[in-house]
Amino acid sequence: MNNKGYEDIGFAKIDHDRQKRQGYPEVIFGAGKTCEHAAAIFKRIKENGNAAVCTRASKEMAEAIISLVPEAEYIEIAKIVIYNDIKKGLEGQVCIATGGTSDIPVAEEAAVILEAFGSKVIRLYDVGVAGIHRLMDNMDILRSSNCIIAVAGMEGALPSVIAGLVSIPVIAVPTSVGYGANLGGIAALLGMLNSCASGVSVVNIDNGFGAANQAHLINMLAVKGSGSR
Amino acid sequence: MNNKGYEDIGFAKIDHDRQKRQGYPEVIFGAGKTCEHAAAIFKRIKENGNAAVCTRASKEMAEAIISLVPEAEYIEIAKIVIYNDIKKGLEGQVCIATGGTSDIPVAEEAAVILEAFGSKVIRLYDVGVAGIHRLMDNMDILRSSNCIIAVAGMEGALPSVIAGLVSIPVIAVPTSVGYGANLGGIAALLGMLNSCASGVSVVNIDNGFGAANQAHLINMLAVKGSGSR
Amino acid sequence: MNNKGYEDIGFAKIDHDRQKRQGYPEVIFGAGKTCEHAAAIFKRIKENGNAAVCTRASKEMAEAIISLVPEAEYIEIAKIVIYNDIKKGLEGQVCIATGGTSDIPVAEEAAVILEAFGSKVIRLYDVGVAGIHRLMDNMDILRSSNCIIAVAGMEGALPSVIAGLVSIPVIAVPTSVGYGANLGGIAALLGMLNSCASGVSVVNIDNGFGAANQAHLINMLAVKGSGSR
Amino acid sequence: MNNKGYEDIGFAKIDHDRQKRQGYPEVIFGAGKTCEHAAAIFKRIKENGNAAVCTRASKEMAEAIISLVPEAEYIEIAKIVIYNDIKKGLEGQVCIATGGTSDIPVAEEAAVILEAFGSKVIRLYDVGVAGIHRLMDNMDILRSSNCIIAVAGMEGALPSVIAGLVSIPVIAVPTSVGYGANLGGIAALLGMLNSCASGVSVVNIDNGFGAANQAHLINMLAVKGSGSR
Amino acid sequence: MNNKGYEDIGFAKIDHDRQKRQGYPEVIFGAGKTCEHAAAIFKRIKENGNAAVCTRASKEMAEAIISLVPEAEYIEIAKIVIYNDIKKGLEGQVCIATGGTSDIPVAEEAAVILEAFGSKVIRLYDVGVAGIHRLMDNMDILRSSNCIIAVAGMEGALPSVIAGLVSIPVIAVPTSVGYGANLGGIAALLGMLNSCASGVSVVNIDNGFGAANQAHLINMLAVKGSGSR
Amino acid sequence: MNNKGYEDIGFAKIDHDRQKRQGYPEVIFGAGKTCEHAAAIFKRIKENGNAAVCTRASKEMAEAIISLVPEAEYIEIAKIVIYNDIKKGLEGQVCIATGGTSDIPVAEEAAVILEAFGSKVIRLYDVGVAGIHRLMDNMDILRSSNCIIAVAGMEGALPSVIAGLVSIPVIAVPTSVGYGANLGGIAALLGMLNSCASGVSVVNIDNGFGAANQAHLINMLAVKGSGSR
Amino acid sequence: MNNKGYEDIGFAKIDHDRQKRQGYPEVIFGAGKTCEHAAAIFKRIKENGNAAVCTRASKEMAEAIISLVPEAEYIEIAKIVIYNDIKKGLEGQVCIATGGTSDIPVAEEAAVILEAFGSKVIRLYDVGVAGIHRLMDNMDILRSSNCIIAVAGMEGALPSVIAGLVSIPVIAVPTSVGYGANLGGIAALLGMLNSCASGVSVVNIDNGFGAANQAHLINMLAVKGSGSR
Amino acid sequence: MNNKGYEDIGFAKIDHDRQKRQGYPEVIFGAGKTCEHAAAIFKRIKENGNAAVCTRASKEMAEAIISLVPEAEYIEIAKIVIYNDIKKGLEGQVCIATGGTSDIPVAEEAAVILEAFGSKVIRLYDVGVAGIHRLMDNMDILRSSNCIIAVAGMEGALPSVIAGLVSIPVIAVPTSVGYGANLGGIAALLGMLNSCASGVSVVNIDNGFGAANQAHLINMLAVKGSGSR
Repeated sequence: MNNKGYEDIGFAKIDHDRQKRQGYPEVIFGAGKTCEHAAAIFKRIKENGNAAVCTRASKEMAEAIISLVPEAEYIEIAKIVIYNDIKKGLEGQVCIATGGTSDIPVAEEAAVILEAFGSKVIRLYDVGVAGIHRLMDNMDILRSSNCIIAVAGMEGALPSVIAGLVSIPVIAVPTSVGYGANLGGIAALLGMLNSCASGVSVVNIDNGFGAANQAHLINMLAVKGSGSR
Repeated sequence: MNNKGYEDIGFAKIDHDRQKRQGYPEVIFGAGKTCEHAAAIFKRIKENGNAAVCTRASKEMAEAIISLVPEAEYIEIAKIVIYNDIKKGLEGQVCIATGGTSDIPVAEEAAVILEAFGSKVIRLYDVGVAGIHRLMDNMDILRSSNCIIAVAGMEGALPSVIAGLVSIPVIAVPTSVGYGANLGGIAALLGMLNSCASGVSVVNIDNGFGAANQAHLINMLAVKGSGSR
Repeated sequence: MNNKGYEDIGFAKIDHDRQKRQGYPEVIFGAGKTCEHAAAIFKRIKENGNAAVCTRASKEMAEAIISLVPEAEYIEIAKIVIYNDIKKGLEGQVCIATGGTSDIPVAEEAAVILEAFGSKVIRLYDVGVAGIHRLMDNMDILRSSNCIIAVAGMEGALPSVIAGLVSIPVIAVPTSVGYGANLGGIAALLGMLNSCASGVSVVNIDNGFGAANQAHLINMLAVKGSGSR
Repeated sequence: MNNKGYEDIGFAKIDHDRQKRQGYPEVIFGAGKTCEHAAAIFKRIKENGNAAVCTRASKEMAEAIISLVPEAEYIEIAKIVIYNDIKKGLEGQVCIATGGTSDIPVAEEAAVILEAFGSKVIRLYDVGVAGIHRLMDNMDILRSSNCIIAVAGMEGALPSVIAGLVSIPVIAVPTSVGYGANLGGIAALLGMLNSCASGVSVVNIDNGFGAANQAHLINMLAVKGSGSR
Repeated sequence: MNNKGYEDIGFAKIDHDRQKRQGYPEVIFGAGKTCEHAAAIFKRIKENGNAAVCTRASKEMAEAIISLVPEAEYIEIAKIVIYNDIKKGLEGQVCIATGGTSDIPVAEEAAVILEAFGSKVIRLYDVGVAGIHRLMDNMDILRSSNCIIAVAGMEGALPSVIAGLVSIPVIAVPTSVGYGANLGGIAALLGMLNSCASGVSVVNIDNGFGAANQAHLINMLAVKGSGSR
Repeated sequence: MNNKGYEDIGFAKIDHDRQKRQGYPEVIFGAGKTCEHAAAIFKRIKENGNAAVCTRASKEMAEAIISLVPEAEYIEIAKIVIYNDIKKGLEGQVCIATGGTSDIPVAEEAAVILEAFGSKVIRLYDVGVAGIHRLMDNMDILRSSNCIIAVAGMEGALPSVIAGLVSIPVIAVPTSVGYGANLGGIAALLGMLNSCASGVSVVNIDNGFGAANQAHLINMLAVKGSGSR
Repeated sequence: MNNKGYEDIGFAKIDHDRQKRQGYPEVIFGAGKTCEHAAAIFKRIKENGNAAVCTRASKEMAEAIISLVPEAEYIEIAKIVIYNDIKKGLEGQVCIATGGTSDIPVAEEAAVILEAFGSKVIRLYDVGVAGIHRLMDNMDILRSSNCIIAVAGMEGALPSVIAGLVSIPVIAVPTSVGYGANLGGIAALLGMLNSCASGVSVVNIDNGFGAANQAHLINMLAVKGSGSR
Repeated sequence: MNNKGYEDIGFAKIDHDRQKRQGYPEVIFGAGKTCEHAAAIFKRIKENGNAAVCTRASKEMAEAIISLVPEAEYIEIAKIVIYNDIKKGLEGQVCIATGGTSDIPVAEEAAVILEAFGSKVIRLYDVGVAGIHRLMDNMDILRSSNCIIAVAGMEGALPSVIAGLVSIPVIAVPTSVGYGANLGGIAALLGMLNSCASGVSVVNIDNGFGAANQAHLINMLAVKGSGSR
């Protein structure tokens, strides 16, 4: 590492400083990287910070990482490789709700990241608007959370309905679940951006990681106040 | 009229036969026509069938028509000019629900057409998903109808929520209400086409007339059975 | 099953109540689910209601389901796994028309669902507008139906032509058949939404299931009157 | 005019040679030009070739041209200013069919151009697919033409149906007639490009001029054989 | 008001309960409403809750409201009509940054709403990425805020750059500022959704209100902890 | 075959009458059909008319057809299976020009169809606008043809340049050759539709067959006059 | 002006330093600004640097500026207000070519900016690909320039053809000239991005200013060598 | 080779003249060509000019070429096969910057081409806007270059930030790196086209070759002055 807070390893400039700034090291976005690159960066981050995470990791990439860092673990449904030796208790509460069972992989990407960062997670899966009573039965879970991540494909109406029921920030995650005129998740994305309810903001399609990141920052503000910044 | 069921008046071929086939004359789509053309066609249809309707009529077009057919009436919110001397009682029940107050013009286009064709209409306005309890309080109205027209802009989630609550055909009408990423109603249209609930079909953006037409056919099947075809 | 009408099996909340409400259990949408999840849900629904259906099932998913529920059957062209021990006669009549032979898989998805739900189906395949006489020769079949499902790819003109010939609700199903500027079915979808004929509503691309659902509701209204709701 | 066949008048390079090559001078596309520019070019072309045409001319532009070339005439429905002192008889036959009355302005742009170039035109208006019998009644007109221009908005199905009935080149012209999901004519354009019938080619939305140009070339080949090239 | 928390005034169902739930009454979205409807709703909300806000109000609509509620004020740059008799001090801090001066109207919509709800606002205008030093000079302002609203048109890069510099939730607001390939704000919207920085979520194009709403919820969590929910 | 001119073989209605009407039997579009269906239809058409053609045939489909009709031949670059026992000489001349070598498969689909129908073909490959002199050197070939098919991907400028040089109908075929912002051929398609030159009409992306069909009709008009209709 | 090189005037942060860095002051983008803001910024820049330019200025904005800075001049066709007291000779040569006369306003925006910055401009208007000889006749002009700006609407083929003829950087400017499937200039933009010729880069639709900026930098590199940076 | 400067080898017309005109032979675009065609063209170019380059070459294509021209070399990360016996020193300096490590393949395509043409390259990888200090630390590299190629995916903000920091032509290359709403690189492309900074022009998505070509022309102008044209 140079004195500028990042290490230049030729094909990448690793931001080791982030742990100091944010309490957790830079997260590797696995998609589009070679297995060798991902593994090498993972190893350097782990050695520097006692923790490392790689998202969007294929099985093959996971194997390449684990062969270099045997203590790391692969959580297949979330496509995440993780090594975590930073001990912290889980604080606050973020609720992750999904419209259907096919949205679970995206939800789990968010859940694993939130827990790695130190936020407590409560899962509320398969509560989509086609059977609204399944959601209504769980108002307590929604209302006791500091932030809600609403994950849905198809028409993506879940965040609107939730935001109409509570006064808590809702992070909407459109998923690519669906076919035809869902346009790979664009239909859900547009629906969420046009939400008629207040208190909804949106991240990219299938971006569980981004939602978790934003939700963790909000949850920490609730738990620790402005001091968490 | 020729013996083929339509009259050739040079710039148009008027389908007078439709009244015999469907019990109601051809409806004029005013948009894109000159006031003179619209008025001339209106007069010929009225003379031939005792009733006439022109949708998407501007104030100016309405005046042109009424100056030719003084018995006709302009219903401004629905942008419809109508003359109706066919006496029939209203039968069955079609519910028209809207997400917000801005969707009312489209809803009224549907309502006026349904009543002109002979279907009873019940209005349920401003029951969008951002305040779901306003909809839940009116389950009786929904359940006592033979067909529901659900009109909504923005994310267009209303038809999904309604279809999840009842077992009645829902005709979804996306409206151009909204801005930015609503893309002139495309967001609502895509949402409705991707509905995760069963029993939803969709018409063009702002197409209250088309929804009314389909709903009337369905309502008549319920009232009169297969004999209504 | 809890007293709220649905069973929570961890990754899913199964709506067993639907059979009571609609006479037929919830249908599983296989795409995007793991084979294990699909099979487990299929088994629970079958045990609870004497019938179960999974659409968009790959061969592999079909095998997983049948190994758990050996009485189930795989209808490959429709990609449906079905077990049906609810005895009912087929009533009314829904006509399913296709533009070409490549639209048949979507049409068969609709046909299998309609028959499972209890509607009589009549098939009219390969009657697209490039050879309009093939359609004109079959006006009797069209006119004797309570509802028509018109399935077409490419320019998707079939529903318009049919709706211009009859006064019966037409459910239009665009298919992804075609290439280039058909944009995976968007061309046909847009064509159908802009139909110049009355009495057409539209479902998502390749959504035979959705069309069947809507058509069944309409057919039952014709057969049983408002009492079918 | 320089010896290269075109005249450089500063803001434009006028292709006077075209008359020698094609028997008719360059046609001015009025849209986007200032009235002054359009009038000046019109005058130079007229002086050089005894004929001149300006399409997409607003009323204001027409007045500017006529004040400079008083012999010119404005055909408002076609938005064309024309001066024609080239005497030729009209030969062959091109049929121009429209789906509805709102498509007439585009059809008339084509008709005026065809007649100016020397092709005989037969008009067949308001024969859209929602009332297919109006088209079927006129098979003789279609079959006696060397080329058919099919003009339609909304779903744009007219060219497919015509091309399925005859073995004559069909030039399809999508119009911007419609609303919502017609996307300013894109729906009709896509429909025509995906025509399932043989012998259809397509020009830009509302491009009556382009269709007329192509149809005239084809008509002349039929009338004069390869010698017309 | 009925005992369900909302008042049914025929064309609208006003959610008076919201003040109790959220400390501030329902905000009227003026666009698409008639001046009469907007004014009537404004009056009812004001009478019920001592405060009322109407966004997207034209000058004409503002006059209609103020003639009915003379105590109300029109803030033209933000297009907001406001009456506010609820006394509260401003707490916490939300920073509103803009890329350029043309983004100010959207930023002011957010600022007025935040202050009406009780959040302290700090403005940082014209700090776009084409002159990155203007942003770097103001790190203190960014770091002392609980939430940052980043408003930008054109390529919409401001939120990414800010989020890379701080560990605070960033709400990104794309604006329709730009031309050509900005597609009315879609370019900025897509850029923000694809942000390579962590901690960014996005609202609809020009949606200053939505961003303010989300930012206020977050700011209150920081100020009051989970108790603010 | 029934007395209506087509044979109903269950999954398809084969239009045997076309040979009588057009001198050549219906052409099978192979894409989206099963090998079995394609082979069965091929056999029936061949038996009925002494010729048969299947386009978009994969190697596997070609083998299925040839095992049923051993006299058929597979032209791999054009993806066409053909059996042709109708003896006719090749007449007239259609020029097929391509922008690059990657456009050749589409060009060959057109060439094979044209020759099967009886039109003489002259090939002018790799004459794209990036090296305009290669085109200019071949003006004789262009000018001696009755119709020109211009095949190009990327920006699709070839048809405009050709149409500016000759007074012969140009059928433009956009290809999917390219990457990124070519959007699978949409860029070339849009370019061709917006051609600033006269006498260009366009078919679907990669649609060599459609272009050949239209070109053959035009070529026959030139060779035989109106009598060819 | 603060010691950071920019002046904070409340609603804007003016980058006075740019003149020192680039030899010419910051250019005001008029669109979307109020006349008052534009005039105030213009005055401050002029006072600070002896020159000022505002692009995309309406007539009304021009009057507001000139009433504050009477020495300024309005060049209407280019929509530019300019005051220039920096004396420099024009150096090098940039050629600006247009496809048609309707592209001239965009070309003139580029020309005025280039001359203000100190580059010599040579205009070559109305040389589009529909009459390729008009371009070929002017090879000398093209070849004697250090950089070519090619401005074209419709299919946007001009830059490709030019780049195929010379070895000089070509900056392509798509214009919104056209209609229908030109999609407001998107067709030309896509065509230029997909250019099959080497040495073409592209700016936003109608962005004459951006092209001039890039061309000036390139021209100065040719005139002054690396020292111009 | 004919006396027109290109060689006609049947399926292609090879532009051997380019080396004389530009100092380097025509570059083969491998994608979409068969391995045989690519290899044959490579061999002919190499024999004629002592150098040859094929871009977008798969491993399989590389093997086909090398088996024909064993002296050629495959640079896998850039997907380029190259044979270069033209001796020239590297002159000037072009900087290639990337946003992340996943953009490296596109950057290397540009780098290899630039060096083959004779431009000196300096690489600055992984300096995206999410960690702006990594870029700021390298201002010297940026400022000492004659041209900067900025390669970035996701929101594509890198070129804007760089162009705001220097007065050097910036060629922006959007990459397809990202997912969901990045639309295969369209988001980055739109962002770059809408850059609020001056001196940015853009090439197609992933088009490292095009950027290198343009950058080389600019670099040579700086090194050799106008004489390099």
